[in-house]
Amino acid sequence: DVTFDPRGRLHLDAAAHNTDNVEDEFQDGFLVRRARLGGSGSLGSGWDYQLEFDFGGDGDSFSYNDLKISRALGAGTLQIGQFKVPQGMETLTSSNRMTFIERASSQAFTDSRRIGVGYDQSGDNYHFALMGYSHAIGDDPDGDAPLGAAGRATFNPITGNQTLHLGASLSHERLDSDTREGAVRFRDRPESRPTEGTRLIDTGGIDAKSTTKGGLELGFLSGPFHMSAEYLRADINGDGDQRDLTFDGWHVQAGYVLTGETRGYRPTGFRTISPASSAGAWEIAARYSSVDLNDRDVRGGEQKNVTLALNYYVNDNLRFMANYIMVDVDDSAQVESLTDGASDEDSPNIFLARMQYNF
Amino acid sequence: DVTFDPRGRLHLDAAAHNTDNVEDEFQDGFLVRRARLGGSGSLGSGWDYQLEFDFGGDGDSFSYNDLKISRALGAGTLQIGQFKVPQGMETLTSSNRMTFIERASSQAFTDSRRIGVGYDQSGDNYHFALMGYSHAIGDDPDGDAPLGAAGRATFNPITGNQTLHLGASLSHERLDSDTREGAVRFRDRPESRPTEGTRLIDTGGIDAKSTTKGGLELGFLSGPFHMSAEYLRADINGDGDQRDLTFDGWHVQAGYVLTGETRGYRPTGFRTISPASSAGAWEIAARYSSVDLNDRDVRGGEQKNVTLALNYYVNDNLRFMANYIMVDVDDSAQVESLTDGASDEDSPNIFLARMQYNF
Amino acid sequence: DVTFDPRGRLHLDAAAHNTDNVEDEFQDGFLVRRARLGGSGSLGSGWDYQLEFDFGGDGDSFSYNDLKISRALGAGTLQIGQFKVPQGMETLTSSNRMTFIERASSQAFTDSRRIGVGYDQSGDNYHFALMGYSHAIGDDPDGDAPLGAAGRATFNPITGNQTLHLGASLSHERLDSDTREGAVRFRDRPESRPTEGTRLIDTGGIDAKSTTKGGLELGFLSGPFHMSAEYLRADINGDGDQRDLTFDGWHVQAGYVLTGETRGYRPTGFRTISPASSAGAWEIAARYSSVDLNDRDVRGGEQKNVTLALNYYVNDNLRFMANYIMVDVDDSAQVESLTDGASDEDSPNIFLARMQYNF
Repeated sequence: DVTFDPRGRLHLDAAAHNTDNVEDEFQDGFLVRRARLGGSGSLGSGWDYQLEFDFGGDGDSFSYNDLKISRALGAGTLQIGQFKVPQGMETLTSSNRMTFIERASSQAFTDSRRIGVGYDQSGDNYHFALMGYSHAIGDDPDGDAPLGAAGRATFNPITGNQTLHLGASLSHERLDSDTREGAVRFRDRPESRPTEGTRLIDTGGIDAKSTTKGGLELGFLSGPFHMSAEYLRADINGDGDQRDLTFDGWHVQAGYVLTGETRGYRPTGFRTISPASSAGAWEIAARYSSVDLNDRDVRGGEQKNVTLALNYYVNDNLRFMANYIMVDVDDSAQVESLTDGASDEDSPNIFLARMQYNF
Repeated sequence: DVTFDPRGRLHLDAAAHNTDNVEDEFQDGFLVRRARLGGSGSLGSGWDYQLEFDFGGDGDSFSYNDLKISRALGAGTLQIGQFKVPQGMETLTSSNRMTFIERASSQAFTDSRRIGVGYDQSGDNYHFALMGYSHAIGDDPDGDAPLGAAGRATFNPITGNQTLHLGASLSHERLDSDTREGAVRFRDRPESRPTEGTRLIDTGGIDAKSTTKGGLELGFLSGPFHMSAEYLRADINGDGDQRDLTFDGWHVQAGYVLTGETRGYRPTGFRTISPASSAGAWEIAARYSSVDLNDRDVRGGEQKNVTLALNYYVNDNLRFMANYIMVDVDDSAQVESLTDGASDEDSPNIFLARMQYNF
Repeated sequence: DVTFDPRGRLHLDAAAHNTDNVEDEFQDGFLVRRARLGGSGSLGSGWDYQLEFDFGGDGDSFSYNDLKISRALGAGTLQIGQFKVPQGMETLTSSNRMTFIERASSQAFTDSRRIGVGYDQSGDNYHFALMGYSHAIGDDPDGDAPLGAAGRATFNPITGNQTLHLGASLSHERLDSDTREGAVRFRDRPESRPTEGTRLIDTGGIDAKSTTKGGLELGFLSGPFHMSAEYLRADINGDGDQRDLTFDGWHVQAGYVLTGETRGYRPTGFRTISPASSAGAWEIAARYSSVDLNDRDVRGGEQKNVTLALNYYVNDNLRFMANYIMVDVDDSAQVESLTDGASDEDSPNIFLARMQYNF
């Protein structure tokens, strides 16, 4: 029979900025980063559903999260609808469980949620996922819908007291280049959103026939310590006068739970920390991320961020987070535009905090 | 005491087009046709409520479904708030239970959901509904609110193993013609929505003092077979220079459940199929619809569609649907506009599929 | 463990107008004044949450209600997130429990919901609340976020069969005057919203460095009789050429429950009426409100309203309300603008009705 389990989360962010060349676009203040409401449950006959909306922002629009059905098929799971394309361990990690407030900028190459059909299967020390996909809900492109295929596989040579995670992903997406100009665009914010969501790196729209994306993942978990590293790369098959382009990025992060708890693990990402004591759990972490959006005629910019993090876990459902982000952007046409040509570099420092709950 | 039963549905459509004269406006792709979330329950003292929103589309806006209270009154039910005006059996049938993915174009004459007060009563072989109504929520017209009255009655001369349904509806709506220009407009899509919702028939805004609408319904249910036919007509009392106008349309459809199940029946529309076996139920169906939006100086166009359907019911809550729609539009100023005057006819063929669940 | 209690309300209003100088802006019709959906519950470890959205209006946007966490702290309660600034007894009273359909215009000086941190504590005959706050969610101001502090204290010299309520509130808010022009604006509708939400009084944007707001409250409850009175005042510290300004307003109201029930009481406002009989409860009430938005060079207008009310309570969750509002606006630049300079006065009479439920 049909069941309904309510789902929701609130991620409320505050930011204070130490600006550099770009000034007015970074204003101290608050942002409802995510305010989600929806449900999941069983439809009977072995099928499950999920339906969730994100009302974060300013009330002028909302966005779509997982809108899907799923069921067991063979030793794995079949999914139909909108859900995440299997690319990038950090993108696949729920925003409720990430170590840092925002994902690394190098995850900007991933496609996040798309409409499609997927299949995934997990064993004792392996996992793989396949997905055929098209556009995202609400992103109705000019021309016919894009068509993509993605695969991701992970392997755990070490499990038990310690966990070693190795992963790789590959995807190819064809775009309707005849009628759709500037079909591909990569950009990101400085790993912080409040209050205006200003971006310092942005390729702008690129005419393209197709893209090929690849990723490599490394993760390690041992007691209160965890680390992970990812490399992501996007190759663009240019259309018309646009020559082929390649962009890439990577990040490495490490965290230590001061109160001794161990993060959970799934092949789709590290899980959150369940405090052992009623006093909660404390975690410190650091991350270096680098992304390069410059190639040939495109000057999207390079961004290299160092982030220090302190997290306080009240319990599985409530968390307070603080990040200090040292941003370093070079060779960016976007910064040039924001500074009216005064500079193509920007190095703001951002203090970012989050109050987060989920149910 | 107060209760809350969550309500929701997801209707995810995909379309592929074989275009004719109108080309760029029909693009292959996906659409979240409906993504509803809300609840219903008891308020105590015999009163029930319903509150449901539709977040389908692209995230820029949402729409309102039933927002109402109801209670038993005498042998019937009183409703206050926004709900469906009693017009047209197919319009009154829940979108979860329709045989075809979209309603017949001739149902474009119905008023769908409006704010008002209604009363309906059902007996062993009859049903009637009355409603006084004004505008729809979110449709805030210039000038004072319209005022309408509608009645619908149905009769079942045959019940039991077979069901024969006879129905008729009549409504009259007065419009504030002093301050509201183009108050009446009839238009429809080619019984398919993805991806841009292009319409091939459209009267444009018509200056009117009032409209009178009538409908006749025939339905028959016998074991795995069902058929239904409806005729709908709208008479417009023109305002100022606008002469009076009459538009009408009709459709006939038949369906057969290959796995032998019988559709449920209510005076407000056929119900869905509950598969007898865990392998689900299969249904085939065909429909012819015709609507004529041409009269006097208005060239809204004629649309005649033939639709073939194949439905697979997993259970009461999950269904997969496929429609092949052969559209034939003639004498349409809208097509002339879309083709820059090249033609006033268009005959695309559309393959339309839906994944649908509700809870 | 995590719990979820669904929350929602529907406030459906209808208005008919007897216009005076301003005509076309007041149209008879309906408005979904509030259509809220969300939930509240426990997050574990003593923390509670609330998450609620308001989808009232026309579907083009939505707004944010309480998005917060709270927990017991000492003898009181700590709150973090968005909730109401402690100002004005009527503003703090839930819209489900107000005696009149809309709050008195003098409550326009209060800040309603803002992001912040608050603490409140109640004793047998006292209550106080403190809050540090910034902007509202979705109200992303130019320049850095405002910063305010507010306190409110109430005292009950009489409790038991009769209740006497004395209250006072004080707040100070600093604005980023360097980059934000016209940061302060006070305005209100004629205590009625349908259908276009026209305002007859409006200061327009005022350049300001800070505001200081104060309020005084008096309430009395004795059996079926209740009365309350409030005075609110806003002092504006002007920026640049803008000289300092002071605006104020007050209202007094009284109500009598014909069926004999007594309203509940909390320091944050009178509670609703629980009908003693299954036939429901009837209440009559009257209110006089006065607000003066004129000072020095600002001609926001003066509005003085007399409202007569009849309320029918079906039970704790369902209520029908009728208000007759005699509006009297003088010396208003806004009326001058709406009448193309013909007059600066307007005295419409409005019949306003509401159907309201909550769960």
